[in-house]
Amino acid sequence: MLKDSEWVRQPGDRYEIRLSGSGGQGLILAGIILAEAAGIYGGRFVAQTQSYGPEARGGVSRSDVIISDEEIDYPKAIKFDMLMAMNQKSCDQYFSDLKPNGILLVDSTFVSEVPLEGAVTIPFTQIAREEVGKEFVANIVSLGALTEFCPLLNGEVLEKAVLGRVPRGTEALNRTALRTGIEAAARFRKKMARRAVAPEDYKLEED
Amino acid sequence: MLKDSEWVRQPGDRYEIRLSGSGGQGLILAGIILAEAAGIYGGRFVAQTQSYGPEARGGVSRSDVIISDEEIDYPKAIKFDMLMAMNQKSCDQYFSDLKPNGILLVDSTFVSEVPLEGAVTIPFTQIAREEVGKEFVANIVSLGALTEFCPLLNGEVLEKAVLGRVPRGTEALNRTALRTGIEAAARFRKKMARRAVAPEDYKLEED
Repeated sequence: MLKDSEWVRQPGDRYEIRLSGSGGQGLILAGIILAEAAGIYGGRFVAQTQSYGPEARGGVSRSDVIISDEEIDYPKAIKFDMLMAMNQKSCDQYFSDLKPNGILLVDSTFVSEVPLEGAVTIPFTQIAREEVGKEFVANIVSLGALTEFCPLLNGEVLEKAVLGRVPRGTEALNRTALRTGIEAAARFRKKMARRAVAPEDYKLEED
Repeated sequence: MLKDSEWVRQPGDRYEIRLSGSGGQGLILAGIILAEAAGIYGGRFVAQTQSYGPEARGGVSRSDVIISDEEIDYPKAIKFDMLMAMNQKSCDQYFSDLKPNGILLVDSTFVSEVPLEGAVTIPFTQIAREEVGKEFVANIVSLGALTEFCPLLNGEVLEKAVLGRVPRGTEALNRTALRTGIEAAARFRKKMARRAVAPEDYKLEED
């Protein structure tokens, strides 16, 4: 499921990403950064949307990014190529809107019940707290990991977009967060690859 | 044109606002704040969208906010009730998408040719620089003024949204910027009202 080769893009296809979690996890900012990475720095057409309702306070927060090689007429996301779920509620609420080959990424700090096989489970918030030193950059850590699994993005455009958007004085911290997220995704990928080739009773080394 | 009584809302109507200008004027953040004011703090349904294309770098930046009493199915703005134009290019490009009774607000620091009669012309950037002391809060000054002309918003929800979204340590500055914008709009309204009643050769006092 995670191999890029299994996923074949047609010209004009839209690539739809939803970032979701609770308010305060920084997903609106993450959506803007993702959109600017793909649009301003990546040269594609992008529409980025968030919706709020009377229920939004304390509820699920979400931010959608649609990327295309052509101008985007209809800016509402329909079926996601990627879903980032930073808490259990958003995971439960949105996973059924993934495309059949869509990629689910969850913050395993908060998501314990993962509804799909082959999901990318990485403890973004724990990594932000323990490896980067600030829990509030979990959104940027998660963007780093997402980049590793998205064929339309790369670390370079993401880093430009992060540095262009985060508050002055936090650039170094956020750069570290992004790179830590990219590394965490690479570690996860490697672990999965080893699991795939290992016989069932083969004892896996832990990273 | 500026009287609220001339504008009659039907239930279910969408209220569409476009904020536009150049990249770096803080319009994406302003759009998020506006959306959160109306949605999270104001209890309405809101969709907030920005689009980027390959031309976005250095070009016109825009952020659309749609407010409704009902859930928003189609998040693309069509005809604007309000257009904020923070530079000449965005004013020229978008003013024709205003509804017949739509309100055009321009930053007269940068917009010298105003294409419509009855536009709200206030030098937001100059006010930010001279009255607030920091040019980069022009976006928040302009939000304050917009609030005064938008029947769905008020200073209270705007202030909550501003304080919830601006970088830590800049709260007092941004609160001042918002209130300065509200005051500037009130001054503008008063000046227009005086003009409307004054005979043509009546010499207006300057504020």
